[in-house]
Amino acid sequence: MEKWECLFCEEPREVNLFWPFCPRCGQPLIVSFPSKKLSFNLSQLSALEKFQTFLPLPRLEKSLLLGEGNTPLLRLYRLERKIGLDFPVYGKNEMANPTHSFKDRGTAVVIQKAVSLRIKKIGTVSTGNMAASTAAYGAKARLNTFVLLKEDAALEKTISTGIYGAHLIQVKGDYGQLFEASYRAGKKLGIYFANSCDPYRLEGYKVVSFELYFQLKGKIPAYIFVPVSSGGHLLGLILGFLNLRKQNLIGRLPHFIGVQAAGCAPLVRAWEKGEEKVLPVKNPHTIAHAISNPSPPAGQLILKLLRKYKGQMLAVSDEEIMRAQAELASLEGLFCDPASATTWAGLKKWLSFTPARKIANAVLLLTGSGLKDLTPVKERGKISLIPATLPCLEEVLSSLAL
Amino acid sequence: MEKWECLFCEEPREVNLFWPFCPRCGQPLIVSFPSKKLSFNLSQLSALEKFQTFLPLPRLEKSLLLGEGNTPLLRLYRLERKIGLDFPVYGKNEMANPTHSFKDRGTAVVIQKAVSLRIKKIGTVSTGNMAASTAAYGAKARLNTFVLLKEDAALEKTISTGIYGAHLIQVKGDYGQLFEASYRAGKKLGIYFANSCDPYRLEGYKVVSFELYFQLKGKIPAYIFVPVSSGGHLLGLILGFLNLRKQNLIGRLPHFIGVQAAGCAPLVRAWEKGEEKVLPVKNPHTIAHAISNPSPPAGQLILKLLRKYKGQMLAVSDEEIMRAQAELASLEGLFCDPASATTWAGLKKWLSFTPARKIANAVLLLTGSGLKDLTPVKERGKISLIPATLPCLEEVLSSLAL
Repeated sequence: MEKWECLFCEEPREVNLFWPFCPRCGQPLIVSFPSKKLSFNLSQLSALEKFQTFLPLPRLEKSLLLGEGNTPLLRLYRLERKIGLDFPVYGKNEMANPTHSFKDRGTAVVIQKAVSLRIKKIGTVSTGNMAASTAAYGAKARLNTFVLLKEDAALEKTISTGIYGAHLIQVKGDYGQLFEASYRAGKKLGIYFANSCDPYRLEGYKVVSFELYFQLKGKIPAYIFVPVSSGGHLLGLILGFLNLRKQNLIGRLPHFIGVQAAGCAPLVRAWEKGEEKVLPVKNPHTIAHAISNPSPPAGQLILKLLRKYKGQMLAVSDEEIMRAQAELASLEGLFCDPASATTWAGLKKWLSFTPARKIANAVLLLTGSGLKDLTPVKERGKISLIPATLPCLEEVLSSLAL
Repeated sequence: MEKWECLFCEEPREVNLFWPFCPRCGQPLIVSFPSKKLSFNLSQLSALEKFQTFLPLPRLEKSLLLGEGNTPLLRLYRLERKIGLDFPVYGKNEMANPTHSFKDRGTAVVIQKAVSLRIKKIGTVSTGNMAASTAAYGAKARLNTFVLLKEDAALEKTISTGIYGAHLIQVKGDYGQLFEASYRAGKKLGIYFANSCDPYRLEGYKVVSFELYFQLKGKIPAYIFVPVSSGGHLLGLILGFLNLRKQNLIGRLPHFIGVQAAGCAPLVRAWEKGEEKVLPVKNPHTIAHAISNPSPPAGQLILKLLRKYKGQMLAVSDEEIMRAQAELASLEGLFCDPASATTWAGLKKWLSFTPARKIANAVLLLTGSGLKDLTPVKERGKISLIPATLPCLEEVLSSLAL
């Protein structure tokens, strides 16, 4: 088995699937990256095969894959024009993954590792995208899968997770405590809880960085806007570009702009105050449920890395998120969830701080599908149905088609 | 502009975007395929670029694409094992398309054609996947988009179409009459109604056949199971393989098995009676809404082609569809809609008729996502939530994790 390390303390650490956090600083651990020269296998069809040498997967069991990754990078011309940008903006459409979110990339690696270690039971703490993703891959791999949900989990989310046959356990009590309790129970019962900052999940997210590098023809994006919840996704993206730099393929890292919803923005608060520690948010409230994490496990590490690599954290309001979601759909044909829409809202806000800034390009990470949460769109109430009958159809169309 | 023909009458026909049906037999027209030698551009990233020479698109405007196609072909090992098959079964996961259904392939070609002809207004008659797809691509291409819905359209469907900014018109009255009325109004008002059997839509569906040919390393699938509604999708698939045969890349066509829901199976009824004409179904009733088409516009042509190329139509019950949907999710990690699940139910039924049949392989076309219609899963009531509190979490998990 490979080695692990703490990127915060910059020291090696013991491998421990059942508590993958640094005993000193408490931040999530990562898999150490080898220093030998590696190469890509771009002629392969599956994303994990293409980048396998960069992943801690000596063997790849193809029967466990669901077709994750290889997602489109789309130029967002109409959004650019709408606000008069003179640089290209791209959307990385992670909705094209098997369960319609970026989580599938992480779960795919987790499942490879679990099966190679002959682990039969996996679990996750999530109420949304990670729940469905883990349940789907767990089903494909014939694992006994346990999904721990918050007590207020929406029916839509439980249905679209339960269909895969996972055990759905709805737990009353504090979500942060549940996160820790899952590892304790997991260790006792031999259940591998691959939660949001699991080291193998992060390895899966690295692949996004590799794909971006090739989709931009061997260049790095200048700025990457990414929704931040636990911090795991952003951490994985940074690791991917660090890997590329270690291979001398790139000279520097992109600027990462982490975006949170104003109603739950613990990292933005710490960032703006220049603090190193992250205080948990009491009473989080935002429509961007997928990133409503009051106590991000990778928070401190993310702050350190953003400072080191000239990134930034910023917050956007629910109103800005809703408008951004509507613009992504009505101008670019992309119906993503509110969490994804924070990236476009975030880019606009960032420009308003620094209007004269001239940059080479920006990438928005569109992390999940709007289909999984129709409530905010419904409640916004801007969608209207025009009634017609067959005899008056032409008249109705004619009044609209001017 | 290219030439059109009627495949039923086997004669050339005039190009007419506003009524793309044969004046003699009434069946949908197709774009004539050139007889010159063509080649693929497999090194391209987008599916339409890879197969552009096979499509009636002399020019491809890349800013109108949404990353459609290039969908995974997954081996369904666990389904094979469950019923003891001795041949491989593959699922073509069309849920990975931009709006999570196969319709995007057709819409992508329609939009290219509309923009090249300087058409500013497009429309479609649909209550589901085609509505969302047309609205999304219409938004990206800055077209004025009109979606005609049935009066009982579900709120989920209208929200996930309306978000793209299309005009949503809910029309009271017979759905078959609405289909015809849309073309009449379209011709008068200059709205290009790209409905289910539009010749350019079919061109987009051809690309599935090309992808299958390459994903199976230059072989054709032995049997292809496909849900049948209007007949447009199946017709496009057949055209794709006919194109490959005309290029001498394959010797014969796959066997196509068209599957309908028993509660709305006009083609199965005609097939079983050996009739050439298709009678409309009165009172269609099935949970597979995406294929609940009582009067398929391409019906007669499909029957003729299935007879010619040794295919078949068969029907499956709602109960069989629900079971198949649950099996695809819980064994293969694929949460598809009831229409898609008819293919797995159909394969099982087909084997029950012909148990001794030894075939090389089978492909199931998984046409759309289960996320767009959660009601049947909810109503089946097989998903249960296990309640727990933090102190008793370990006990609850332990009782399940044996």
